[in-house]
Amino acid sequence: MREKVNLAEKLALVDEPFKPGIVGYLNDYKLVVGKVKGEFVWHSHPETDDFFLVLEGRLTIELRDRDVELGPGELFVVPAGVEHRPRSDEGAEILLIEPRGTVNTGDAGGELTAPEREL
Amino acid sequence: MREKVNLAEKLALVDEPFKPGIVGYLNDYKLVVGKVKGEFVWHSHPETDDFFLVLEGRLTIELRDRDVELGPGELFVVPAGVEHRPRSDEGAEILLIEPRGTVNTGDAGGELTAPEREL
Repeated sequence: MREKVNLAEKLALVDEPFKPGIVGYLNDYKLVVGKVKGEFVWHSHPETDDFFLVLEGRLTIELRDRDVELGPGELFVVPAGVEHRPRSDEGAEILLIEPRGTVNTGDAGGELTAPEREL
Repeated sequence: MREKVNLAEKLALVDEPFKPGIVGYLNDYKLVVGKVKGEFVWHSHPETDDFFLVLEGRLTIELRDRDVELGPGELFVVPAGVEHRPRSDEGAEILLIEPRGTVNTGDAGGELTAPEREL
């Protein structure tokens, strides 16, 4: 049977930025926690929107035409197909929600591509 | 173009328990904030899981065989078809994520059924 998830406890198991981990599922979506520190890569997800909720710290989601600045308790949904680059100078802890199988680097690939793993 | 969502600001627009409001969308899912105070009704959603994240206060999700107790930063996904009753004595503020069109009272209906509305 499913148990509750304490997000801070799960985040304590994430020891590197950009190496997120799955903490649960909502139908065919995965609930993911991760840490951001520095710049990710520009990418998009042609097939799906991408949900970001900041839990701690500050996150910038760079879009091609503007920056979205998020603090704790703030969320942004990147529309499908829109190029974006998450970035945090001070570090951020986030909850991501995406369909299972969504690759973190989307259409960009590269060395920051992380396999799906459960925490 | 979509804007970021500050959950506390949106919750300030919710003036009654069990009258939730939509703050955004993730593909065909709605992102909903709401307040819980007292007991909701026993119900289930035969077609979908139901995501609860507590933002403030304490929430009990009663299941038929146990209670799930959630505080801030804790989430629980009620599996599809599982009867549950949200309850909070002290009051709770929550983020819900469900497919668009999901009725808050599920298969139970009744006077606490609230229309979908955007905040």
